[in-house]
Amino acid sequence: MDFASFIGIISGLALIVGAIFYGSSDFSIFINVPGIMIVIGGTVAATLLTFQFKDTMAALRAMFIVFAQDKQDPQAMITTMLSLTKIARREGLVALSRVDADSPFLKRALGMASDASDEEYIRNTLQADIDSLKMRHYVVQDVFKKMGTYAPAFGMLGTLIGLIQMLAQLDDPETIGPSMAVALLTTFYGSLLATVIFNPIAGKLKARTILEIQTLEIIRDGTVSLLGSNNYLAVYERLSSYVPAHQRKPAGIGGGD
Amino acid sequence: MDFASFIGIISGLALIVGAIFYGSSDFSIFINVPGIMIVIGGTVAATLLTFQFKDTMAALRAMFIVFAQDKQDPQAMITTMLSLTKIARREGLVALSRVDADSPFLKRALGMASDASDEEYIRNTLQADIDSLKMRHYVVQDVFKKMGTYAPAFGMLGTLIGLIQMLAQLDDPETIGPSMAVALLTTFYGSLLATVIFNPIAGKLKARTILEIQTLEIIRDGTVSLLGSNNYLAVYERLSSYVPAHQRKPAGIGGGD
Amino acid sequence: MDFASFIGIISGLALIVGAIFYGSSDFSIFINVPGIMIVIGGTVAATLLTFQFKDTMAALRAMFIVFAQDKQDPQAMITTMLSLTKIARREGLVALSRVDADSPFLKRALGMASDASDEEYIRNTLQADIDSLKMRHYVVQDVFKKMGTYAPAFGMLGTLIGLIQMLAQLDDPETIGPSMAVALLTTFYGSLLATVIFNPIAGKLKARTILEIQTLEIIRDGTVSLLGSNNYLAVYERLSSYVPAHQRKPAGIGGGD
Amino acid sequence: MDFASFIGIISGLALIVGAIFYGSSDFSIFINVPGIMIVIGGTVAATLLTFQFKDTMAALRAMFIVFAQDKQDPQAMITTMLSLTKIARREGLVALSRVDADSPFLKRALGMASDASDEEYIRNTLQADIDSLKMRHYVVQDVFKKMGTYAPAFGMLGTLIGLIQMLAQLDDPETIGPSMAVALLTTFYGSLLATVIFNPIAGKLKARTILEIQTLEIIRDGTVSLLGSNNYLAVYERLSSYVPAHQRKPAGIGGGD
Amino acid sequence: MDFASFIGIISGLALIVGAIFYGSSDFSIFINVPGIMIVIGGTVAATLLTFQFKDTMAALRAMFIVFAQDKQDPQAMITTMLSLTKIARREGLVALSRVDADSPFLKRALGMASDASDEEYIRNTLQADIDSLKMRHYVVQDVFKKMGTYAPAFGMLGTLIGLIQMLAQLDDPETIGPSMAVALLTTFYGSLLATVIFNPIAGKLKARTILEIQTLEIIRDGTVSLLGSNNYLAVYERLSSYVPAHQRKPAGIGGGD
Repeated sequence: MDFASFIGIISGLALIVGAIFYGSSDFSIFINVPGIMIVIGGTVAATLLTFQFKDTMAALRAMFIVFAQDKQDPQAMITTMLSLTKIARREGLVALSRVDADSPFLKRALGMASDASDEEYIRNTLQADIDSLKMRHYVVQDVFKKMGTYAPAFGMLGTLIGLIQMLAQLDDPETIGPSMAVALLTTFYGSLLATVIFNPIAGKLKARTILEIQTLEIIRDGTVSLLGSNNYLAVYERLSSYVPAHQRKPAGIGGGD
Repeated sequence: MDFASFIGIISGLALIVGAIFYGSSDFSIFINVPGIMIVIGGTVAATLLTFQFKDTMAALRAMFIVFAQDKQDPQAMITTMLSLTKIARREGLVALSRVDADSPFLKRALGMASDASDEEYIRNTLQADIDSLKMRHYVVQDVFKKMGTYAPAFGMLGTLIGLIQMLAQLDDPETIGPSMAVALLTTFYGSLLATVIFNPIAGKLKARTILEIQTLEIIRDGTVSLLGSNNYLAVYERLSSYVPAHQRKPAGIGGGD
Repeated sequence: MDFASFIGIISGLALIVGAIFYGSSDFSIFINVPGIMIVIGGTVAATLLTFQFKDTMAALRAMFIVFAQDKQDPQAMITTMLSLTKIARREGLVALSRVDADSPFLKRALGMASDASDEEYIRNTLQADIDSLKMRHYVVQDVFKKMGTYAPAFGMLGTLIGLIQMLAQLDDPETIGPSMAVALLTTFYGSLLATVIFNPIAGKLKARTILEIQTLEIIRDGTVSLLGSNNYLAVYERLSSYVPAHQRKPAGIGGGD
Repeated sequence: MDFASFIGIISGLALIVGAIFYGSSDFSIFINVPGIMIVIGGTVAATLLTFQFKDTMAALRAMFIVFAQDKQDPQAMITTMLSLTKIARREGLVALSRVDADSPFLKRALGMASDASDEEYIRNTLQADIDSLKMRHYVVQDVFKKMGTYAPAFGMLGTLIGLIQMLAQLDDPETIGPSMAVALLTTFYGSLLATVIFNPIAGKLKARTILEIQTLEIIRDGTVSLLGSNNYLAVYERLSSYVPAHQRKPAGIGGGD
Repeated sequence: MDFASFIGIISGLALIVGAIFYGSSDFSIFINVPGIMIVIGGTVAATLLTFQFKDTMAALRAMFIVFAQDKQDPQAMITTMLSLTKIARREGLVALSRVDADSPFLKRALGMASDASDEEYIRNTLQADIDSLKMRHYVVQDVFKKMGTYAPAFGMLGTLIGLIQMLAQLDDPETIGPSMAVALLTTFYGSLLATVIFNPIAGKLKARTILEIQTLEIIRDGTVSLLGSNNYLAVYERLSSYVPAHQRKPAGIGGGD
């Protein structure tokens, strides 16, 4: 469970609800089913037209992943790569193919290393994998970024419809206020969805991608330098650039041999 | 038929129409022929002034393509390239020129491969083709992106004209409401066109281009690595970077020999 | 004459004028000389302050060029380069210096080719020419893009002045409407200039530049590959990447020998 | 203490407070606790959802660093690198490892230089460190940039809530003014936070990063050229590009030997 | 004196003042000292918080430079480099160190050329100088760009303060108009400063930088090619890419020997 994400979305919505109750005990004036339908429905419709169907689905899945605990940890991966260096030194590169790796990317890297593939070849193939993942993640982030622009746009369309109808039939001045309130509701829904949900989720997906790319780059660089030097300290030197200076642990710790 | 596109545009428009009927049974107040003319006509006029005539025409054609089934399928192209590897191994590179390929790009790639052209030359020529296609597609997407800015701009111009005329002749307060309703209509038309049609189509064209470029890159990389190694597994390794790890099929499936 | 540009600007302005007449027979309320002066004058003043004087002048010249027929035709240049290949093969590279070329860029390229300059040197020099042209064209496009932001900004300044004066002297409620109408006029002028003239012209200049760069790149690549291979088909293969697959003519047509 | 930062934020807030007192002696109308909560709370909530928790914390720490004296001084680092050149010449490269350096980056560079590592290796490793630091700083700046967009967005949401409640219950025309004043307060809070605090801090962090990167690049280039030439003047020539021509001190000053 | 800059700013301000006088003979309603203080003071405060103090000062100096005659002239520098070629040919490269050059950059380039430094070394060192200058100029332009966003933001804050105070105390409907007029004044000041001063100056600084970079690149390329070929025509060919084809003078003119 990613508590920051969870607290973020819950407290964001709670603050809005609280502000509504503070201003008036009548919450019902903020519920307008046709307005909710035009904003959410319109946003979904425009998103379906904008993206490939499978990208829209991938975005829906990613939405839940945002609230799940992130499993990417560059620091831990550095430790993993260092222990793999020791295995390679003791038992030879071939032993790497027997290592049980969770990440398919690490598995692939170790497979190529144990096949004693060309260093250039390993680097290029892993880089192609990283670029391809970057592209797929970019599309998913883009789905939420676009939803963050469609929601306020449909909100404004709803408000325009309400305003035009109210202005065209100005029979009873008494109804102007309530009519405008209803018209403004869709603008409110659109801004709410964009500000509290779509834009932050797009941001979180980007933050996750940065971390995942970093982890993959540590695997790439670790595999290549393990192949080249087979030397614990050299691999450590190479990978330690990925963490801030004050977080770097002395290379010896846990190295042990 | 691209159902997601179709459902997206139909449901988007239906939601707007539904919202109008929900608010008032009088749909006619949303029909204003001069307003429609100034927004659509103005957008077309500005687009003609902005782009080369042939690019505007290409954009109109692309608009229909968006609703047609997309024929680009990177996964299928990987399978195709793998089966071409087998043909090349069994019958030699020259046999590739006899393969019947739908895609002119694949045809060109195979032609060069069967001529045993230089690997560098093949890569550069195919890359030049890809860059040139990217540029042409970019221009077409740009037509819709610009239309998505021109439509609201002409909508605002129409509203300004209406407001200025109303304000200059404030004879009868009774007519203020209906006059403002009519003035706001062009803003509504402009936003509607941009949000429900132009911006999503620009997005879909971009998504299609990403997929097409990927397919062409698979052909490029497949042809080059088929030339280099003539080895089924090596070509598979190279191309599998283009699909997510969990979608990669074991190389053996369908490989058969 | 570039008819698309011409029709675009004429019909854009005609639609606006038509919309004004449709709403009211009194066109005079849309004419306000001080308002026109502040928007056009202010835009020119800010542009003079923003750019080098010679760049502003170059932009004014470019404005007329947009309505002149574009002479850049990549397809025609491919044909030209192919016929030059034949001349080079029959009469030798020296003959290229005697070819009468309209474009100073082509002249320069042929001059270097007939001097049998180094391939690398030709490519670099021509690329430097292309980069330099790109930079100059970018500045000219930027003049119109900036004018497209200054015009609405001065329009808003004019409206603010009118509103402030009206609000400060609310003596006679009768005059509020007409005063606001006059105040809104500068916003209208500013948006009109930006939407119907400045932004589209900036776009067209960009479209023209893309085409011109493409033509120059065909000359560059054609000259280099004509130097390298002196072979009609090879030059054709190299240059055909610049046109879409379905527009490529069989290399033999017009080749004749 | 960074006095410019301090004076900037204090005088910015003082001007706003002064403007409020100038307009009316009643400051209390600008205090609205629920409004402050929705804007600050909402901004924090959306930020927690957008970024990794540790990045949000890093941003909070960076906020205080902005008001602390900046310790990065490219000029001083050039002097340091020059004096290290003299040590290297007199006592050999090995002596560099005994130099006491504050900066962990300089320590690392000197360590590698005294190990007589490969020039290419030193450059690449230091560059990887610089890129990694750039990425981490970019994320921290991004936290403030996003807060600078979330604050006005929550301000607008608060205003919409207030407006909708006011319009829905237009019982007493007397209360319209004060209700609207309260509704506008959240827009005011949001703009205030973005304009006076979040956006300038994001800018200052960027300015600091530019200076820090420059200092690290001086260490990188200095170490590499000290390794290559071991020559005081050559190192000086190389590093002097980092300061404007008129600030360059003659190389001899302080060089002394 | 840069007359275009001077005429631009004077006529821009004159048009605004003229528009004010045209609308009403009472200029005093546009003078509001607290409003001017909040907009100018706030902009300065936010700028101090955003940038390093020395960058803010550099920007203030740059503001005056914009109105001084620009001394950068790429055409003249080409002529200078060509005459230096002749000196190098007649008297040898060493003679270049005796040439009296205004520009410290040219001096440095000639110094390195007369030392017969490595071509690669000269190119890299001069490029580092150019990159460093680009970075410093970018920061100065950024100061004005940011001021162009801070001024309207403080203008809006001032207007919000005025509106909130007016709405909170709607005692006397008579004062609504004048109060709103005063409130709108800060929006007017902010837009005025951004549109007539800050944004155009940022643009002009950018235009100046483009010209200066070009001049430095001519020195860089001229020095390198003078070193390589020592040949008048070759240097001319290399440098002429920097001017449009129709402005290129025949190489012989003024060459004379």
